[in-house]
Amino acid sequence: MNRYCFGVDIGGTTVKLGLFNASGDLLEKWEIPTVTEDNGKAILPDVARSIQKKMDERQMSRDEVLGVGVGAPGPVDSEGTVYGAVNLGWGTFSIKKELQRLLNMPVEAGNDANVAALGEMWQGGAKGYTDVVLVTLGTGVGGGVIVHGRILSGSTGSAGEIGHVHVEDGEETSCNCGNKGCLEQYVSATGVVRLANRKLAESDRPSMLRDRAVSAKAVWDAVKQGDPLAVEVAEDFGWYLGKALAIVAGVVNPEIFVIGGGVSKAGNVLIDYIQKNYQKYAFSGCRGALFTLARLGNDAGIYGSARMVLD
Amino acid sequence: MNRYCFGVDIGGTTVKLGLFNASGDLLEKWEIPTVTEDNGKAILPDVARSIQKKMDERQMSRDEVLGVGVGAPGPVDSEGTVYGAVNLGWGTFSIKKELQRLLNMPVEAGNDANVAALGEMWQGGAKGYTDVVLVTLGTGVGGGVIVHGRILSGSTGSAGEIGHVHVEDGEETSCNCGNKGCLEQYVSATGVVRLANRKLAESDRPSMLRDRAVSAKAVWDAVKQGDPLAVEVAEDFGWYLGKALAIVAGVVNPEIFVIGGGVSKAGNVLIDYIQKNYQKYAFSGCRGALFTLARLGNDAGIYGSARMVLD
Repeated sequence: MNRYCFGVDIGGTTVKLGLFNASGDLLEKWEIPTVTEDNGKAILPDVARSIQKKMDERQMSRDEVLGVGVGAPGPVDSEGTVYGAVNLGWGTFSIKKELQRLLNMPVEAGNDANVAALGEMWQGGAKGYTDVVLVTLGTGVGGGVIVHGRILSGSTGSAGEIGHVHVEDGEETSCNCGNKGCLEQYVSATGVVRLANRKLAESDRPSMLRDRAVSAKAVWDAVKQGDPLAVEVAEDFGWYLGKALAIVAGVVNPEIFVIGGGVSKAGNVLIDYIQKNYQKYAFSGCRGALFTLARLGNDAGIYGSARMVLD
Repeated sequence: MNRYCFGVDIGGTTVKLGLFNASGDLLEKWEIPTVTEDNGKAILPDVARSIQKKMDERQMSRDEVLGVGVGAPGPVDSEGTVYGAVNLGWGTFSIKKELQRLLNMPVEAGNDANVAALGEMWQGGAKGYTDVVLVTLGTGVGGGVIVHGRILSGSTGSAGEIGHVHVEDGEETSCNCGNKGCLEQYVSATGVVRLANRKLAESDRPSMLRDRAVSAKAVWDAVKQGDPLAVEVAEDFGWYLGKALAIVAGVVNPEIFVIGGGVSKAGNVLIDYIQKNYQKYAFSGCRGALFTLARLGNDAGIYGSARMVLD
């Protein structure tokens, strides 16, 4: 008998779904829209219907499906309870129990960033490792901690919130979370732009970044071309992120850090800036940690979700 | 048949041993000297001999003993391998395998601070909880993270090194670990004295702490009597520790923090200073964490060691 599992990654506008075999090969992926009306009450029924439809299309029996894993954009504990997901309109309830009821098959649920970390461990940048920290540098900064091959969810699903680790005592602007001086304020795509704009405003020094709309990509392109002001931005970026990951390492001591998200498309140049600061701030017993780039891109969530049901 | 287990806490000068029943009652405790000569090669044979002697005294059969847990002052991974213990003269080897060989019974091993955290979870300040962070404020600062009732050891036994989390960018003096700005430099017993001496040197303001040798105890006694300079020291202490524990919470999201070690004898007054800063810096999803004082004192290690073999 063939064995399959489904991985589901629920985002604010689309739900990504993937069909995997038990060896971890992605056989097919597709998307459905996320219907957030009425506090997102249609989302899980829509997911269930889409999975049922795929099983019918492929003439799959229930016995062949090991289960369904789901990642959601909110804190989710190890029992599959989500503690609110603002972008979906969700309050607190058990994703696991609700989807199990709809599909009558085993379900596991996790926070989207944590699930992405599990995906990168299983089939991505950290393949072959079991103790992994993923940090995703996108519009915001997400994170996930994997310990001995399993997601560290935390007591209320808020473990791995690396974007909101405090790294700057002197910050005067508030982060989206309400605190001041969070890592996200410096190393997200918007954070990098903010660092660059600050540096541009400080002086009239020439730079490729002047007199144009600055993006994170433009900053890293300028770094690669040796633009001195852009290089200073990269140094600041590396100082904040290297310092933060050194602190994270002192708490969970991973084998490997995986850097993902849109900003990570700049490539290995990022890692040099991060790693030298990591080495400076890390506790001696944690300095051997490796650094690598994420490999699964936007599919990390469906991979990690599927992996949850194979445990 | 009765069921027993032994908990062993190896320190640089003495080894503490405890005999427990399976319900977690400490039936008897005793100590033997730690013989560190010849790279500490006599330590585990001495421990084995002491346990064997106790079993003979009490006419215990091997079948009645569920196993022996050991805490050691160095990084220990989840397989029971120690990666060097400077104070004992030890290099890298499997404590678990070596003591199993000597005693012919199940052995588990862990880092002493991590094991103490497990002890406080089992029978101490965090009894009834499963997701716990212990921070011990002694000569240095130790830490231990418990996730779902188990020690988080990290990939090379260096998880929970909370004393070496970086909290101060402006520090010019080096920590014992070689880095600058570690939590230990501000909130250990010596750290508190350092904060007080700095503040005393800054001005001629009157204070109970003037013209005498300052100790951490003297600082907290002065805080309790409302000495304004001592209160400022307490504010600084709380700022460093509250901020650091907020960062730790963003990574592992515990239910409860336990504050132990000699400095914690000052009592609940510490918690007020820590908690208000914790609330300021913690990610919203982690703000519900509780704070309490450790209860087992120097016995936390033997309790936690014994607990490891009952899993």
